[in-house]
Amino acid sequence: MRQQNLSTVLGQVHRAGQLSRAALTTSTGLNRSTIRTLVAELEQRHLVTEGDAVVTGSPGRPSPVVAARGDGAVVLAADVKVSRIIFAVVGLGGTVHQRVEVPLTDDSRGVAPTVDRLVELIGTALAESPDLHVVGLGVSVAGIVRVADGFVHLAPNLGWVDVPLANLLVDRLSGDLGITDLDVVIGNEADLGALAEHVRGAGSGTRDMVYVSGEIGVGGGIVVDGRPLVGRSGYAGEIGHMVVNPEGRPCHCGSIGCWETEIGQRALLRHMGWADGGDHEVVDAIMREASAGSQRALDAFAEVGTWLGIGLASLINVLNPQRVVLGGVFARAFSYLIDAARVEVDRRSLGPARAVTAITPATLGEDSSLVGAAEMAFTPVLADPTLLPLHDTDVDVAATAS
Amino acid sequence: MRQQNLSTVLGQVHRAGQLSRAALTTSTGLNRSTIRTLVAELEQRHLVTEGDAVVTGSPGRPSPVVAARGDGAVVLAADVKVSRIIFAVVGLGGTVHQRVEVPLTDDSRGVAPTVDRLVELIGTALAESPDLHVVGLGVSVAGIVRVADGFVHLAPNLGWVDVPLANLLVDRLSGDLGITDLDVVIGNEADLGALAEHVRGAGSGTRDMVYVSGEIGVGGGIVVDGRPLVGRSGYAGEIGHMVVNPEGRPCHCGSIGCWETEIGQRALLRHMGWADGGDHEVVDAIMREASAGSQRALDAFAEVGTWLGIGLASLINVLNPQRVVLGGVFARAFSYLIDAARVEVDRRSLGPARAVTAITPATLGEDSSLVGAAEMAFTPVLADPTLLPLHDTDVDVAATAS
Repeated sequence: MRQQNLSTVLGQVHRAGQLSRAALTTSTGLNRSTIRTLVAELEQRHLVTEGDAVVTGSPGRPSPVVAARGDGAVVLAADVKVSRIIFAVVGLGGTVHQRVEVPLTDDSRGVAPTVDRLVELIGTALAESPDLHVVGLGVSVAGIVRVADGFVHLAPNLGWVDVPLANLLVDRLSGDLGITDLDVVIGNEADLGALAEHVRGAGSGTRDMVYVSGEIGVGGGIVVDGRPLVGRSGYAGEIGHMVVNPEGRPCHCGSIGCWETEIGQRALLRHMGWADGGDHEVVDAIMREASAGSQRALDAFAEVGTWLGIGLASLINVLNPQRVVLGGVFARAFSYLIDAARVEVDRRSLGPARAVTAITPATLGEDSSLVGAAEMAFTPVLADPTLLPLHDTDVDVAATAS
Repeated sequence: MRQQNLSTVLGQVHRAGQLSRAALTTSTGLNRSTIRTLVAELEQRHLVTEGDAVVTGSPGRPSPVVAARGDGAVVLAADVKVSRIIFAVVGLGGTVHQRVEVPLTDDSRGVAPTVDRLVELIGTALAESPDLHVVGLGVSVAGIVRVADGFVHLAPNLGWVDVPLANLLVDRLSGDLGITDLDVVIGNEADLGALAEHVRGAGSGTRDMVYVSGEIGVGGGIVVDGRPLVGRSGYAGEIGHMVVNPEGRPCHCGSIGCWETEIGQRALLRHMGWADGGDHEVVDAIMREASAGSQRALDAFAEVGTWLGIGLASLINVLNPQRVVLGGVFARAFSYLIDAARVEVDRRSLGPARAVTAITPATLGEDSSLVGAAEMAFTPVLADPTLLPLHDTDVDVAATAS
């Protein structure tokens, strides 16, 4: 019971960044003395700090503010994209420290060089901050991932097939760095983007959300009644492979006319008459052309927007979400895509479902999968804060006695 | 706590029909004396009966069998289809009593004559069995339904628009029959079919299921992690309006190329070269032709099967279900459709998701929506069995003292 209550309080502070004790009392339904005791214990475990009292607007005395301690428990998070790895140390409350990017090329995005690079980044981060209490490593990969054991079935744009990534990392962390106590979790970039946008981004506060992210491929994540839709074996949300044009173009997955073939980066380049290849810099170039008034670029986005809307209509009819969050390319080029998309959504989705659906760009930018990887890595500590040791610090006696 | 435990025990007995006390002890985690007390109370509320002890195969004494009392609490259930109303009295445990069908014609399927007919059926059923304890009325409608207040937005094949069906029925039950204490709930036929197949049919035992039902239109219901996916406002599961052929045929919903336009009854008739119209008897006629070897009929089913498979591939990729249950036409014509459907599923769904998905015909036949309507109507009593009165019956003292 105490562990459950510690988890509830820490989870709320972690999501919000900071909350007054009075707000915690209201939101948890626990009484004031229980909250005071729980916060004191979380403080002794270096997970939160309690600051000055603030006036909350409600009757009664000013209430102390409880803040997630960004330098207490931290996780390491990495997002392995096609053209680069983004790596960061992320603290409780979502604070991103030491964010670095390293490019990946055709020569360096294979499994072995990527694992080398990740181990190097981890070693450097730990050497730079030996005092951090690192509780996990989360890695986002643009591929089909079995979360249970961190196995990557297929990451087509990285060229990876059947990679036991978590095991590879655990072995190397142990062998190269002598680290044997780090939980390593691997997730699909779109699932993690959805998680991050739901917890800290454009989906915050919704219980029924669809996240559609355009990178080179197209991924997604679905939140149903506040929880990620994982499906029977964890592969739900592969919305990029909905069939929208059955007589259309071949998809790398083996099917024909998947949504990805009409709204992925290749489709955009095709409409521009450009050769395939590149990553977000080519989308940026098309956006610059559109911004300068190039009809070809505007038409390319409108064509992709039309197909985006066709697929969104299907998802709205099947899932009846409260919010559709568009990430990656679709967030960056939102203003160029959305009008054409809305035409199809209005025409093809059922009125009662459409009436409750807001379509909105993601707000975490290119860090959404990174933030989601960190969230996933924090899961064990958030579930059981007693995993962190108690410290004999001088507890703020004034606060606990108030 | 007691109410919650009564609800748990009654729910398990209702789903299974009957269970030994020993099985209840195992499945609930409650101890034997608690189960004995709970069963005795449910018996006094006329919800279950306790029968002879049976040997369970596990060590210990033979354990008495607890059975749902089909003549205790009952609900009235109706399924308003395009060509007929199916009506029944359904007892706890799923026992169907007094099942009748009345035809609907172009003249009689309007709102007013349908409500007349329903009130008449209810009046007759109550007059025939005055001793039944009726706890609810559930009605299935082939349309878009707002469950919260039983409002039918649109039932295209009935020609209904914006019908406050629950309110109409409540008013008439009160005015015509003097009944003022009956909960009236309305549901979409496919949602209710999914519920029934999940509780008592081909989806029993699964936590992630997709139900696809072909009637004149195409509906569906989705179960995620054991619970119906309802979406933000209750309209999830309109899978008949996934866009599968965006340049295809107009759908009555206003879109083009909805799944329904390729796998609904109209598509089947189109492939046969037959005029549109009729209900399940025309499908039966096509099945007879197919069974007699008619290539045209076999090709018609294969064509529909192909499009069925295309849409199923999308649903498998998006939802990663454990079981896909095909109802209505797709269950009756399963053997004629499934080979063509599997070709597309195998080609278009992602291997890891497909590997865990079984595709299977529904097992409740044309009563699935009726059974689902009954299940929905039982919900309040299953949640709180103390809604039923205690009776001063001679409790089986031997059983409660054992």
